[in-house]
Amino acid sequence: AQSSLTLFGVVDAGVSRYTTKSRSWNGTQQQVTQSQTALSSSGYNSSRIGFRGTEDLGGGLAASFWLEAPVANDSGASGIANFGRRSTLSLSGPFGEVRLGRDYTASFWNDAVFDPFGVNGVGTNLIAVVNSNLAAVRALATGGLLNGGLSAGTDSYLRTSNAISYFLPANLGGFYGQVQYALHENVRDSSAATGSSRRGRYAGARFGWTDGKADVALGYGESTLSSTAPTAEKIKSLNIGASYDLGTVKLFGEWSRVRDVRDGTAPLAARLTDRYDGVVAGVNVPVGAGVIRASYGRVKFDDGNGLPGSDASVNKLALGYVHHLSKRTALYASVARIDIRNGRNNPSVVGVTPLVLSVRAILPQPGYVSTGGLEPRRATGYDVGIRHAF
Amino acid sequence: AQSSLTLFGVVDAGVSRYTTKSRSWNGTQQQVTQSQTALSSSGYNSSRIGFRGTEDLGGGLAASFWLEAPVANDSGASGIANFGRRSTLSLSGPFGEVRLGRDYTASFWNDAVFDPFGVNGVGTNLIAVVNSNLAAVRALATGGLLNGGLSAGTDSYLRTSNAISYFLPANLGGFYGQVQYALHENVRDSSAATGSSRRGRYAGARFGWTDGKADVALGYGESTLSSTAPTAEKIKSLNIGASYDLGTVKLFGEWSRVRDVRDGTAPLAARLTDRYDGVVAGVNVPVGAGVIRASYGRVKFDDGNGLPGSDASVNKLALGYVHHLSKRTALYASVARIDIRNGRNNPSVVGVTPLVLSVRAILPQPGYVSTGGLEPRRATGYDVGIRHAF
Amino acid sequence: AQSSLTLFGVVDAGVSRYTTKSRSWNGTQQQVTQSQTALSSSGYNSSRIGFRGTEDLGGGLAASFWLEAPVANDSGASGIANFGRRSTLSLSGPFGEVRLGRDYTASFWNDAVFDPFGVNGVGTNLIAVVNSNLAAVRALATGGLLNGGLSAGTDSYLRTSNAISYFLPANLGGFYGQVQYALHENVRDSSAATGSSRRGRYAGARFGWTDGKADVALGYGESTLSSTAPTAEKIKSLNIGASYDLGTVKLFGEWSRVRDVRDGTAPLAARLTDRYDGVVAGVNVPVGAGVIRASYGRVKFDDGNGLPGSDASVNKLALGYVHHLSKRTALYASVARIDIRNGRNNPSVVGVTPLVLSVRAILPQPGYVSTGGLEPRRATGYDVGIRHAF
Repeated sequence: AQSSLTLFGVVDAGVSRYTTKSRSWNGTQQQVTQSQTALSSSGYNSSRIGFRGTEDLGGGLAASFWLEAPVANDSGASGIANFGRRSTLSLSGPFGEVRLGRDYTASFWNDAVFDPFGVNGVGTNLIAVVNSNLAAVRALATGGLLNGGLSAGTDSYLRTSNAISYFLPANLGGFYGQVQYALHENVRDSSAATGSSRRGRYAGARFGWTDGKADVALGYGESTLSSTAPTAEKIKSLNIGASYDLGTVKLFGEWSRVRDVRDGTAPLAARLTDRYDGVVAGVNVPVGAGVIRASYGRVKFDDGNGLPGSDASVNKLALGYVHHLSKRTALYASVARIDIRNGRNNPSVVGVTPLVLSVRAILPQPGYVSTGGLEPRRATGYDVGIRHAF
Repeated sequence: AQSSLTLFGVVDAGVSRYTTKSRSWNGTQQQVTQSQTALSSSGYNSSRIGFRGTEDLGGGLAASFWLEAPVANDSGASGIANFGRRSTLSLSGPFGEVRLGRDYTASFWNDAVFDPFGVNGVGTNLIAVVNSNLAAVRALATGGLLNGGLSAGTDSYLRTSNAISYFLPANLGGFYGQVQYALHENVRDSSAATGSSRRGRYAGARFGWTDGKADVALGYGESTLSSTAPTAEKIKSLNIGASYDLGTVKLFGEWSRVRDVRDGTAPLAARLTDRYDGVVAGVNVPVGAGVIRASYGRVKFDDGNGLPGSDASVNKLALGYVHHLSKRTALYASVARIDIRNGRNNPSVVGVTPLVLSVRAILPQPGYVSTGGLEPRRATGYDVGIRHAF
Repeated sequence: AQSSLTLFGVVDAGVSRYTTKSRSWNGTQQQVTQSQTALSSSGYNSSRIGFRGTEDLGGGLAASFWLEAPVANDSGASGIANFGRRSTLSLSGPFGEVRLGRDYTASFWNDAVFDPFGVNGVGTNLIAVVNSNLAAVRALATGGLLNGGLSAGTDSYLRTSNAISYFLPANLGGFYGQVQYALHENVRDSSAATGSSRRGRYAGARFGWTDGKADVALGYGESTLSSTAPTAEKIKSLNIGASYDLGTVKLFGEWSRVRDVRDGTAPLAARLTDRYDGVVAGVNVPVGAGVIRASYGRVKFDDGNGLPGSDASVNKLALGYVHHLSKRTALYASVARIDIRNGRNNPSVVGVTPLVLSVRAILPQPGYVSTGGLEPRRATGYDVGIRHAF
């Protein structure tokens, strides 16, 4: 059987500066600014190293594997310590592809592909930042980061371990899609009083259509954080994204509704649903060997308690330029500005920083002070760097 | 000098279910069942990734290295974090091979090669499970897992670090063999009152003969767990295995005697020897592109105290089928059933689960309740999966 | 664009023995000896595995990356867990090279290249051992190992993360050089009372000249350990090294002055400078397919307090032989003897052992007793091993 084995990767390094500002909301004119200059990795593409291969089994059948590790090339601190980016084994054929292992979730994809900045650098899709914050903060609140904190604690949002996925075959006239189920792997004990935990389970699907110019896709996913009395909690994500390539420019757009649904038994509230509604619009403008990128995003938080003045919102504006020295090597520069309204109502989720995850305890970075009458208010960031793929 | 460099590996993924049952032995009719469904790796072959190479130095001399990491492809949790499977440098020639580094122990080999299931999946050689449990439990009881818990805590049984091995050359008319010594590396302090510790030292040997159809080998090894007053402890393993390939079927058999020998100074007992006597028989039946596998194993525990009714025993039955899609890719399914008698006498070692190691604190899995009048009684497991080698 | 991708490495294994002796300095004739026999890695060259590549971008421009992990092949304990040896991305051209990431410091190079033993095995450059001890001990004393303890805690001496380096181009008539700045990456908080910390910052440079036979270079570097009131601390390293290849022998020499400068605010001393003055001389004598290596080193410690009798010193003598079986494979043997005078005045830095770092809490090895009237006095070590590069 014919086969291939490929060693591949990305090394992306740059200099970045991140600034956050908290301000008083109680009338006093106080503010605290935090800033950091860092040698950064992954400002344009995520640094990684991977091994993948495929074997033609005849009859249209193929076996393939994909093992991909994140690389912290700024500090060397992580090598190929884990295959946290992807570690899958697939059997594919005319029927489609069955894929086993760790992979992106079905409901994440639209947050990445329908934004000109994807989820890298200071321009990172605003919806993705809010969703990452929510995933990490609720995992911590309900028993700790899922799957040992791979992918910086965003598991069951960005990626999931122990997944079984089915992908449609390629020849469906532009239609594509996948369904995905990730096992929670908790031990069921017949003597346990509270029932068996399904914490860590993820189920989702994504379907789309493209003709090469237009691309549109719908994603949905449910992540179980708690399933045992007296409380249960799920994060439910629904999103739709589209892009259209006009040749002179490429347009991007996404709408997302993420609900954090908590069910309780008395005296707790029967059901409490926090809602995060987001929209992102962006554009890529090719200019010679380069591309200008711009995006605007907005996410609105509705507190499940429904009290007056309990909502919050975030706006983000990002602008960048990528100059291609070759197909594999590019120089890039990006700037972004984030504005937060009523951040005091939900500082850990809507207190958005220029990075993909704002939770300071997980990813060292400037954060917001949200005590003493202060609330998250504004952040800015820039990246200047070089990306090399191999 | 001619040379080669090879990147190689195995990715094995499947869905497995493990169930254990504890029952009361004091008359009450209580029982507790634990179960787990998991995306599993290594159900047929151990998932791994490695680098190896050899250089022809002329005159029949060669230098070669082998660095091989275990891979948790179900979760991506471990990448190439360690070369815990093997990390050796060899100089070989007409005289044989001198090998330095981390490797399988000489006394382990027979547990793996003379069982149709080897040490993977729910069919794992029963003798190997008992020996793994013993190694981990006694290491924990005498100061913690050896060598930092590589190979899931089975060091000095399954593998050992810091080893110096000598292998016979290949041209001895079918005779083969090795002797192995692993340095304990403890610091000797001239001012220490209790003498110097040799904890972590391993010494063993294995000799065999094969003509291609028949294969028979004898293994022996000693692992030092404690050597300083007031107690000393060694695990001494003796085993003999054989296989015979009749063409239509291949037969396997193994006998093993493992002794846990503890020497004390008064008022402790002068010597106390627990004994684990095991036997395994198995068969491989080729059927077209597939192989049916079956095995039966039994291990009997004799408590060194010699009190009446202090013994225990385990029986295991395993059945499986492997379907080869190509030389490198196979589908497989296995089932196994384990029965334990008098498990209350030694629950941590004879409380065998469907996996290679039953110590729940080290390898997350369903375990046995062995308090409140309950004892390990029965376990079942199955695997359905796909193995791809590259 | 033409490009290359290379997988490379070194596996070096041997048997080593290390002995240290502490003796009483208060008149009693006590002494404590500690010793260890170990399967060692990196006795001649550092065991490693790496990935590097380069892409020709046209116009003399090139992009290149280098990811290199240390390998503990004696135990398999570390695989490619981190790229702690080097992880860089470079853009180079007629102007020279800009390099981003983790790399050797500019001020370390002379300690390695102007000693016949470099910084490997029992013959390791004495100046490097003292400098490694100082870096680790002062990092621990001021808040913990830098950069997570990569390179065994010698960061900001041997290597540094988050560095931006510029290298002169190759065509300057034998002149070469680099300047380097490593970002501290600490968050600046506008509300912090003590100012912003620059701990972890490194700045250095190195310039040299070679005609192929003669080679001479000057290095300087500053590592910031503390910059916030009431104390500030920097380690400032100056060194000059030279080698001359006479054909029949190659001569090596180095002079080094390292200052540990602490500034305080009253009632602390305004400035306190410990000084470590070192000199090393060595020789390589080719003999057929082998090379005899010998070196002598001496480091003198001057306590910043300037009290009478507060100084200390170390002498080291090393002798070795390397036999090349091929360009890539070599057998080697080395012996070394270390003598310490007045070690009680600075046991953690001048208590030198045969390894590159003497701090026992970081690198397990025989150490010195320096309590109860004992002080570090003498150490011996030997290595016998084999090195294979691929």
